[in-house]
Amino acid sequence: MNSERPNDSARALSADNAKSDGPGPPLRKLFCARGHLVDSGIMKKILDAIVREGGSFEIAQFDIGRTNDDPSTLEAAYTVDDEKASERIARHLTDLGVEIISDSGVNLEKASVRGVAPRNFYSTTNHSTSVDHNGSLLQVENMRMDGVVVIRDNSDKARAFCVKLRDLRKGDQIVVGLDGIKVAPEFIERDRSEFGFMVSDVSSERVVRTVVDRVAEVIGKRDKKVIAVAGPVVAHTGGGEAFSALVAGGFISGLLSGNALAVHDIESQLYGTSLGINIKTGEPVEGGHSHHLRAINEICRAGSIKNLIEEGALTSGVMYSVIKTGIPYVLAGSIRDDGPIPEAITDMNEAQDAYFKILEGADVCLMLSSMLHSIAVGNMIPARVLTVCVDINPAVVTKLKDRGSHQTIGVVTDVGLFLHLLAERLCAKNS
Amino acid sequence: MNSERPNDSARALSADNAKSDGPGPPLRKLFCARGHLVDSGIMKKILDAIVREGGSFEIAQFDIGRTNDDPSTLEAAYTVDDEKASERIARHLTDLGVEIISDSGVNLEKASVRGVAPRNFYSTTNHSTSVDHNGSLLQVENMRMDGVVVIRDNSDKARAFCVKLRDLRKGDQIVVGLDGIKVAPEFIERDRSEFGFMVSDVSSERVVRTVVDRVAEVIGKRDKKVIAVAGPVVAHTGGGEAFSALVAGGFISGLLSGNALAVHDIESQLYGTSLGINIKTGEPVEGGHSHHLRAINEICRAGSIKNLIEEGALTSGVMYSVIKTGIPYVLAGSIRDDGPIPEAITDMNEAQDAYFKILEGADVCLMLSSMLHSIAVGNMIPARVLTVCVDINPAVVTKLKDRGSHQTIGVVTDVGLFLHLLAERLCAKNS
Amino acid sequence: MNSERPNDSARALSADNAKSDGPGPPLRKLFCARGHLVDSGIMKKILDAIVREGGSFEIAQFDIGRTNDDPSTLEAAYTVDDEKASERIARHLTDLGVEIISDSGVNLEKASVRGVAPRNFYSTTNHSTSVDHNGSLLQVENMRMDGVVVIRDNSDKARAFCVKLRDLRKGDQIVVGLDGIKVAPEFIERDRSEFGFMVSDVSSERVVRTVVDRVAEVIGKRDKKVIAVAGPVVAHTGGGEAFSALVAGGFISGLLSGNALAVHDIESQLYGTSLGINIKTGEPVEGGHSHHLRAINEICRAGSIKNLIEEGALTSGVMYSVIKTGIPYVLAGSIRDDGPIPEAITDMNEAQDAYFKILEGADVCLMLSSMLHSIAVGNMIPARVLTVCVDINPAVVTKLKDRGSHQTIGVVTDVGLFLHLLAERLCAKNS
Amino acid sequence: MNSERPNDSARALSADNAKSDGPGPPLRKLFCARGHLVDSGIMKKILDAIVREGGSFEIAQFDIGRTNDDPSTLEAAYTVDDEKASERIARHLTDLGVEIISDSGVNLEKASVRGVAPRNFYSTTNHSTSVDHNGSLLQVENMRMDGVVVIRDNSDKARAFCVKLRDLRKGDQIVVGLDGIKVAPEFIERDRSEFGFMVSDVSSERVVRTVVDRVAEVIGKRDKKVIAVAGPVVAHTGGGEAFSALVAGGFISGLLSGNALAVHDIESQLYGTSLGINIKTGEPVEGGHSHHLRAINEICRAGSIKNLIEEGALTSGVMYSVIKTGIPYVLAGSIRDDGPIPEAITDMNEAQDAYFKILEGADVCLMLSSMLHSIAVGNMIPARVLTVCVDINPAVVTKLKDRGSHQTIGVVTDVGLFLHLLAERLCAKNS
Repeated sequence: MNSERPNDSARALSADNAKSDGPGPPLRKLFCARGHLVDSGIMKKILDAIVREGGSFEIAQFDIGRTNDDPSTLEAAYTVDDEKASERIARHLTDLGVEIISDSGVNLEKASVRGVAPRNFYSTTNHSTSVDHNGSLLQVENMRMDGVVVIRDNSDKARAFCVKLRDLRKGDQIVVGLDGIKVAPEFIERDRSEFGFMVSDVSSERVVRTVVDRVAEVIGKRDKKVIAVAGPVVAHTGGGEAFSALVAGGFISGLLSGNALAVHDIESQLYGTSLGINIKTGEPVEGGHSHHLRAINEICRAGSIKNLIEEGALTSGVMYSVIKTGIPYVLAGSIRDDGPIPEAITDMNEAQDAYFKILEGADVCLMLSSMLHSIAVGNMIPARVLTVCVDINPAVVTKLKDRGSHQTIGVVTDVGLFLHLLAERLCAKNS
Repeated sequence: MNSERPNDSARALSADNAKSDGPGPPLRKLFCARGHLVDSGIMKKILDAIVREGGSFEIAQFDIGRTNDDPSTLEAAYTVDDEKASERIARHLTDLGVEIISDSGVNLEKASVRGVAPRNFYSTTNHSTSVDHNGSLLQVENMRMDGVVVIRDNSDKARAFCVKLRDLRKGDQIVVGLDGIKVAPEFIERDRSEFGFMVSDVSSERVVRTVVDRVAEVIGKRDKKVIAVAGPVVAHTGGGEAFSALVAGGFISGLLSGNALAVHDIESQLYGTSLGINIKTGEPVEGGHSHHLRAINEICRAGSIKNLIEEGALTSGVMYSVIKTGIPYVLAGSIRDDGPIPEAITDMNEAQDAYFKILEGADVCLMLSSMLHSIAVGNMIPARVLTVCVDINPAVVTKLKDRGSHQTIGVVTDVGLFLHLLAERLCAKNS
Repeated sequence: MNSERPNDSARALSADNAKSDGPGPPLRKLFCARGHLVDSGIMKKILDAIVREGGSFEIAQFDIGRTNDDPSTLEAAYTVDDEKASERIARHLTDLGVEIISDSGVNLEKASVRGVAPRNFYSTTNHSTSVDHNGSLLQVENMRMDGVVVIRDNSDKARAFCVKLRDLRKGDQIVVGLDGIKVAPEFIERDRSEFGFMVSDVSSERVVRTVVDRVAEVIGKRDKKVIAVAGPVVAHTGGGEAFSALVAGGFISGLLSGNALAVHDIESQLYGTSLGINIKTGEPVEGGHSHHLRAINEICRAGSIKNLIEEGALTSGVMYSVIKTGIPYVLAGSIRDDGPIPEAITDMNEAQDAYFKILEGADVCLMLSSMLHSIAVGNMIPARVLTVCVDINPAVVTKLKDRGSHQTIGVVTDVGLFLHLLAERLCAKNS
Repeated sequence: MNSERPNDSARALSADNAKSDGPGPPLRKLFCARGHLVDSGIMKKILDAIVREGGSFEIAQFDIGRTNDDPSTLEAAYTVDDEKASERIARHLTDLGVEIISDSGVNLEKASVRGVAPRNFYSTTNHSTSVDHNGSLLQVENMRMDGVVVIRDNSDKARAFCVKLRDLRKGDQIVVGLDGIKVAPEFIERDRSEFGFMVSDVSSERVVRTVVDRVAEVIGKRDKKVIAVAGPVVAHTGGGEAFSALVAGGFISGLLSGNALAVHDIESQLYGTSLGINIKTGEPVEGGHSHHLRAINEICRAGSIKNLIEEGALTSGVMYSVIKTGIPYVLAGSIRDDGPIPEAITDMNEAQDAYFKILEGADVCLMLSSMLHSIAVGNMIPARVLTVCVDINPAVVTKLKDRGSHQTIGVVTDVGLFLHLLAERLCAKNS
């Protein structure tokens, strides 16, 4: 802000018509924000959002952090002609961490039916969020994108929860509108983290070994909760052995996958093939296409993967290491499954809940060539989770970002080689 | 075969040691086949399979069709050193439509537990198959890949069924081994069909309009059962309007999809956006990322899509046309769903069964940019179904073929434009 | 900036040690900038660049535009420990349009050899640039990326030119270092243009028809210089007819391509095939793979494409329209050419010069599925040129951006369908 | 063939009307072939080609090899209605290695102008070819696709050469039509080679390490002429060090590349970056985008890469190893080059000739992520060369095959990791 400019604070800007409705005078809303607004790119997004809806802005006060440690603060107003546009701007600004100034706290409305929110419900982002309720600021728990915020007054202390639509109970007190909501985007920290430079980058023309080094550094200390989200391509590309070693080495805290990874992993242990291709020689095996079905039949016969291990029939591989190590895992079913094996959860609501439970408190997500499960997990985790997506198809990362998981770091490469190098880096000292 | 060659028939070849077991003398199996063995490429595959396993072949008689209308017939034997290799060859040859000569019909074993097959069960292909049982040749019903063959003697007439592992009942009589099995690959007809030239081709350097013309020809007469398998990309790329027109025009007999297509379709009808992007202008809409959640909430509030139509709230779009036209549809749930909406089947076993029911008797499958559902459907349909897969990512078609849906015709293009042109071609006369 | 902050201007900040050299006290440089610094994202990039090199910044004054029409102004300083890092920051800041404050104008050094610049030469961006020389500000002419700036005193008036390394003459006065250089990035205008929303977006999940509409709007008035950069995929995907119509309709001002487009275009006119595939039916033509060679032979026989037209042998197609319309074109040779035909320029330096000449004054570049020629053109044009790249492979756009053509708008789709729709939109009224 | 069939040989079939012209009686041509016709897939292609043109075939004699070591022999005829179709079939059959039976040897016509062939010239494939000339069978030398065959009677011995159109001299005796031409496709050997199983396969779901093993086996003995065709992606993805080690280790016999690989390789040696990205850390370097230009300037200043090495300025990297080892290399220019450096050949005809010279006698081609140079090389080499193409984009392999390099083995993976593993496998023992 210009130092010559009179010291008018944002609060001094007239907001008289902020509640105007019709085609009358233009609407004007005051707002404020605080944080690394410029270097996080948020300031740009704020102004873009206003201009794109045909609005104009007026900045009352903008203190840019004087050094790179100081946060910036902004007090400003936007003006726009119609109510709908005003609300769209307000929604977007709120998502960006801007506080739309109002005297009141959050507005609540009751769910009149199970699983249905009031029309004007506030739809969450995956950023840390708190709500101003009866004068106290409640941190929203179980944060994830595409939820609604419910205030629950257990005992005498109110708590705010992020709840999926389908988990809404009749009578739940649901936050509607945008008043009293404060979002704190994590972009800032991320941008400066050791991976920050890669955040917006899905080029295949990069040195993959440097990413392997960074991931190895991050998970090498075994002090973080690292959840692997893995598809059957891990088995098809020969990454199974390396991935098993990482699990056995204690670098992975939980596995989220589907029926197929387990089946193809066990197929490769029992028959040496994956999708009918010999894992060692790369050659097709006559009649090998039925091996995955025989693997399924074996698991079903034994009753479970665990039983197969206890029988002595399964002595290595990803699922062996996972079960032996005792880390939690969930195999979600899907419409394309053969079998499925007994461990696969066939009901998707149940499977989502089981995924979510394992993801609680996760620090790192390694998404290993499974678009389906990666998008599922992207929906469930807060943006603060360090999210690395390894896929040979650059479009997978684009899809994740299009669906709101902007924090994803994309690594365009062969997952088999990636895991091989990662295990080489981390597991060498143990062998 | 050389006409100078003595008239030794395959049956005359010594097969004495065909049942030998150990590391003793090499194993020798007689086999025969009939069909367009050369121009279908099957003859090549037969020889490849034998050589790849280290075996050798001897051809007793090979009558190539003298003209392109005559089928060829082959009588031959293969020799290989070990039993395992022999069985692998036999398996592969059987899949190719070769009959391994044996005096006996199929061998049967009972399922001793629900959902588990005997170890040596015969695993099906997606080709038309019959089994020699008690002297009569039974056509296997409900043919699909990755099933097992069960003989059921309802009343006094035996019938053979292709059954998924999980649907096996205790006591079911299951075909084991390879004796008495006859597979009839459909490659031949396909190879000469109007699409034949494209079967092995996933190049993006092709004229898409010619494929549109062929599809228009095939489905334009409305005399075939045409099942569309569609993903939400249909909505994201603006293909919804064209696809609705095709449904409304009676060109589609059934829709297999997931929660997401319905949600994004209805999002675009109610709010004009898809993934938060304005469908008309291509611009992001402020706060638009929550529209899909609002659409879900609306559907849940109404109780169903049908109710939403009856309320008058939904008056156009894919789901509107599907429901108004009355064609059957199934929305399968998935782990990445938001919601899901009431119509989505969340249990995957149930969803597969519902898909399968709609696919019965299908002549054509249009796979429209949904890898997940396309692979699912590929698993369920016989190879005789004309299968066209439209996707901007050539890897999707490769994946389908890797998983056994070799009949798939891949069209690498933008599904939105593809549907736009197809509707233009087919629906113009009506408007 | 905080209005409470003392009105210290950047110039008042001590820059005493700005010329310090050794490992002594940290280096400090003053700088200033003006423009839409926040909403263009430049402010963020400035701060990022400093922090990434381990430096810190201090902001003396920052006037953010009070409304969206006002430019912002910044006066600030950065401090960093070593000289190299300081220079790297200075370079990057200069590229971003920041002026590093110095009392002197640009420093010049003479080229001592033809084609070689002094070590410390200033390497240009593709943004509008001017240099402070003897007290007057000279706009650099023939602006492009990866050039050097030469001051030429023809007659009594100095002019500044952007010159490729290989075009440097001995004795040329070359700008070295960063003093006195002012870059004016065009991002701002672009960000708000009708395509602005797409700038950073290479998703395939977009409605291509909206892009067609925008392009149609922009080039429909025929008041802009529109250069098409086209590869042979235009012919292979059946886009030739549509592209010819656009040329004939006067919508294209010049064509930059290679030997292959001309050959495959003329192949399709003479023999009906492209890469041996029948353009109408999509079927391979027996022996058709030699058609492109026969086309080349025909052109060579006639002596030129023009002669072939005059002979009456070539009566339609892209090259026919181009030559009949009389718009300029260049066919650059490449190592993968067959032939080449007489029109192809086989020397790459000559071909680049010929391309550059046609690109002078271009307003719009349509890059149609030719990675090679598109990157070539990206190197030659200033960033203010509206650049639309249509390719089915999203990686092409990523590559363009990685090489500095950040202004590129990526459209992931089939170029044949794209051109078909564009011609339908623009040429309908004429037919 | 049926042994009951009368012993009519193909020669006995009436071919009276084989020279008929008009719409009169259908045309009939006799042909014969010998080789592994079935397991190579050629028999199928022969029949397909006839049927696709509306023709029919009649098989006089078909001796399939009785075991997998015996070749098959075929004598047959095709009948088709019109002359054009007959010629198209004949052309395709000839390419497949079929001999169209005629009494005469090859027909010759003189080139009446430099660089132009007679209309009916025979266009070559990349398979081994010989021609029947004056009663002796001449092996065509310098075999490549898309050439013409010239008979030169130097001294008293006639020799046949494959010549590019532009190298035709006035008066050259050129083979026209199809009489007397014998093509010997190499598919058969390839199909059974150690890589055979991969020939038609561009799936990304494969174990890359098995391919690394195979390549290591093949080139590890250093007894084959191995030409590497490499693009700058080798440098961008950090494969430079590994590739240098392979060159230094004597595993590579020649390098074909362009200006960009040399520039980015030397950029990474001098400045530690590639495309402005730090090769070690993966982070962008401020101002790093100009490094490639500074590298070019340094090379130009020194006069050549060799001089730069002699100055002691360049002490490692790909070009350093290539020059130190003394293997031949060619850097072809391209329209997208900066510079170019003195070593780059800017004229494309010259560059092609230089490439071709290095490729003479090559046994193996490693195509390392350079679509441009790989297609160029594909055009120049006979199909017998073991051709392995490593690219993260599966479309590159499809393009190679679409352009006739059917022998290409595609490996869809990150070239940096691929080279890293290959060097690890081969160079470990040396270090």
